[in-house]
Amino acid sequence: MAELVAGGKGVIEAILRRRSLAPRKLVAPGPDASQLELLISAAAAAPDHGRLHPVRFVQIADAGRATLAQLFRQAASQMEPQAGPELADREAEKAHHAPCLLAVVARIDDANPVAPAHEQWISVGAAVQNVLLAAEDLGFRAMIVSGRKVQSRLLQAAFAPTGSEHLVGFVAIGTPTAEPSPRDRHPGSLAHWSGT
Amino acid sequence: MAELVAGGKGVIEAILRRRSLAPRKLVAPGPDASQLELLISAAAAAPDHGRLHPVRFVQIADAGRATLAQLFRQAASQMEPQAGPELADREAEKAHHAPCLLAVVARIDDANPVAPAHEQWISVGAAVQNVLLAAEDLGFRAMIVSGRKVQSRLLQAAFAPTGSEHLVGFVAIGTPTAEPSPRDRHPGSLAHWSGT
Repeated sequence: MAELVAGGKGVIEAILRRRSLAPRKLVAPGPDASQLELLISAAAAAPDHGRLHPVRFVQIADAGRATLAQLFRQAASQMEPQAGPELADREAEKAHHAPCLLAVVARIDDANPVAPAHEQWISVGAAVQNVLLAAEDLGFRAMIVSGRKVQSRLLQAAFAPTGSEHLVGFVAIGTPTAEPSPRDRHPGSLAHWSGT
Repeated sequence: MAELVAGGKGVIEAILRRRSLAPRKLVAPGPDASQLELLISAAAAAPDHGRLHPVRFVQIADAGRATLAQLFRQAASQMEPQAGPELADREAEKAHHAPCLLAVVARIDDANPVAPAHEQWISVGAAVQNVLLAAEDLGFRAMIVSGRKVQSRLLQAAFAPTGSEHLVGFVAIGTPTAEPSPRDRHPGSLAHWSGT
């Protein structure tokens, strides 16, 4: 898609071009402090019914990578005890991928009278998508990752200790060492309704 | 923000500039068939863990507006029986707002072994955000709207009859007759974690 969509300014192309790239293929440099601030502003520009601010981001400091690796290792061992140390090693390694790793922490109010829980999750998704698109706009690649270990009590306790929040996963951001492999896109689904 | 963010191509500005505009302020023209196809492609480019395609869109045909108005009226009367006919009239009127009205229908697999339900909702949110951003890129304004009536059995039965889907709300798209009022933006939340 070399030409812009008629009347567009390139946003649609950016949306269609965006691809997730595995965090292990993301290297330094990542976003600097002012770029990171832009990404977080982009997140905050997502639709947010009831203005509940259902998502916040937590950057993993370099000093925290070893501890995160330990948590990943323990969580993997607990959740798949039969899998052996190779899996635990592989999971631990993931804490060191990507120069910028942002934990995505959601706070969903299940009893909110204005916005039902699923609308709050939709808002979280819109915020995450804004971060991914904004990161790509700055020349980085990015991906949101989760996996079973994220649901472990250990990781939930580390990032969502109050119990009223939920660790969703991590957004990994960095400079790509490879391009994502092209993949077939679902065309999307549009139907028509005339009430009959 | 007159200048582009250094290194950016304008996507961040588009994200920060986007504002929801009430459907009653959206008039014709709306997107034509090929523009609508782009919006749906944009939706399908959202991250989708497990490739579950958890969202589809249903355009309300002109011929369906009167029926939708009737559903809005009945749903409002059922859900707020004490409110009187003014509320029902007001709700019915909303079925005629905006030249393009897309019902957003989610199919969430609560028992999926790969992607928990909340990840599927996040995917729905990312898809909706892509539609909103793509619509703005084409010069339209857009907003996702819901409200209590959307949760009514009547509307759920009309758009998600199988029971395995859920009507989330409607994306309204059109040409703005007014600019959205500026509003203070939450700055977003970024914390740091070093594991201690």
